Amino acid sequence: MAGTNHKEASKVVDNGPAVILVVPQLGENIGKAVRAMYNFGLTDLRLVAPRDGWPNPDALAPAAGADIVLDKARVFDTTAEAIADLTYVYATTARPRDMIKEVVTPKECCARMRDAVDAGDKVGLLFGPEKAGLKNDDIALSTAIVSVPLNTAFASINLATAVGIMAYEWFQTGSDIPDSYTPTLDTKPATAGELQKLFDHMEHELEEAGYFRSDQRRSLMRRNLRNIFTRSELTHEEISTMRGVVKALATGGGPGWQAEKAGLEAKKKE
Amino acid sequence: MAGTNHKEASKVVDNGPAVILVVPQLGENIGKAVRAMYNFGLTDLRLVAPRDGWPNPDALAPAAGADIVLDKARVFDTTAEAIADLTYVYATTARPRDMIKEVVTPKECCARMRDAVDAGDKVGLLFGPEKAGLKNDDIALSTAIVSVPLNTAFASINLATAVGIMAYEWFQTGSDIPDSYTPTLDTKPATAGELQKLFDHMEHELEEAGYFRSDQRRSLMRRNLRNIFTRSELTHEEISTMRGVVKALATGGGPGWQAEKAGLEAKKKE
Repeated sequence: MAGTNHKEASKVVDNGPAVILVVPQLGENIGKAVRAMYNFGLTDLRLVAPRDGWPNPDALAPAAGADIVLDKARVFDTTAEAIADLTYVYATTARPRDMIKEVVTPKECCARMRDAVDAGDKVGLLFGPEKAGLKNDDIALSTAIVSVPLNTAFASINLATAVGIMAYEWFQTGSDIPDSYTPTLDTKPATAGELQKLFDHMEHELEEAGYFRSDQRRSLMRRNLRNIFTRSELTHEEISTMRGVVKALATGGGPGWQAEKAGLEAKKKE
Repeated sequence: MAGTNHKEASKVVDNGPAVILVVPQLGENIGKAVRAMYNFGLTDLRLVAPRDGWPNPDALAPAAGADIVLDKARVFDTTAEAIADLTYVYATTARPRDMIKEVVTPKECCARMRDAVDAGDKVGLLFGPEKAGLKNDDIALSTAIVSVPLNTAFASINLATAVGIMAYEWFQTGSDIPDSYTPTLDTKPATAGELQKLFDHMEHELEEAGYFRSDQRRSLMRRNLRNIFTRSELTHEEISTMRGVVKALATGGGPGWQAEKAGLEAKKKE
């Protein structure tokens, strides 16, 4: 999904959750996680004992320009040090653990984190190493477990995808984007009067073409056609398009179309 | 997030949306998208004119074992052919397009797709090439646009992350996993009587240690301690753990505690 709008100021979410990667292995995976973080405005990256050290040049290209996150990243020796300033820490894991610890969905986790952040507290998300996931000792340090509902027969999520899903849910808690909307651009919705003129035009031409055949069929087809075009929510401009279509179809090949074509060609020559 | 449970039967969502990758470039990205699909039970992959042909060996390792999706994948020459059997098609794009076409959130999109699938219709999600995204001609074939709310200053999402977010939202529409729960394992929650015995034990030892100092402080601290431990929702087994802790602290201190106490009192007098 391409399309960064460089003109818009970065809508960075201040005080969004810290993303804590515990013993991450490949720099490439760290870079992809960074890209997913910044897609959703998260900038506080903390690395616990990254296997290949830090900074890691392999993370650069996959981060796809999210330098602000890479530059601010901090390295810690232990998970305990990495989370010391956080009030609530959620441990991501797909695997059930033998622990008496609350398990929440990503959505519930993010709703709680938003409440905490609104109350002035700092929060974070723990992610384990690519293959093994978090250790139980890391989970025991956490407020709760967050587990993504998924296909339990194929539950190993790519690190960047897991970070992306959590960051996406976080962003949604602060987003006021409506569930659906239709951009109107510079157009105006058609009035009922404009629509009526389209119907009159279409029905006149259909009458001429012998399309209706009987009074009964005329009533039925008129209703059907009106329902099709009211459902389309046409704009003022689209009414013109449709009238042009009706005209072209009605006159196409016939003497009218020949005349119009001749006129157009004469115009071209001017 | 590691942890595939190979013992559980695959909870494949039948008739989940087709994932249509239009002119995908790197095999690695197709493989990662396949992994994200199958994490959430999606198996209908359609490739429109993949740049490097199909099958592509580069897709194998990143698919991480989601062979069922790779094996079923179908290749088409055009988007129109790839979506011909679908009733509703949603085009993913982060970039606003100059089109009068409804834009929905992933959540709204998935709710509508679930309704359609429940009504017996087939649905699909269109994803564009990694760099450029979908062409307007592909979008014009779609029912609506689905746009992930994100940081508009850094809106280029990795293909697998985009597929993962959509597949995750789809899976949620069919998931009955509660927002939160606490596994009890083989333990039993403690009764009020067990908890009271812990309080009695702790307060007795604190009394012996001279912790309460005054009647007023005794009342206050007893209430505070009771609130701490009722909030923990201890199990039967954890009551035993806590009583062992109190006992160890009370007796372990023995002479050492006396010495510390003497030291503290000496300090007070200074």
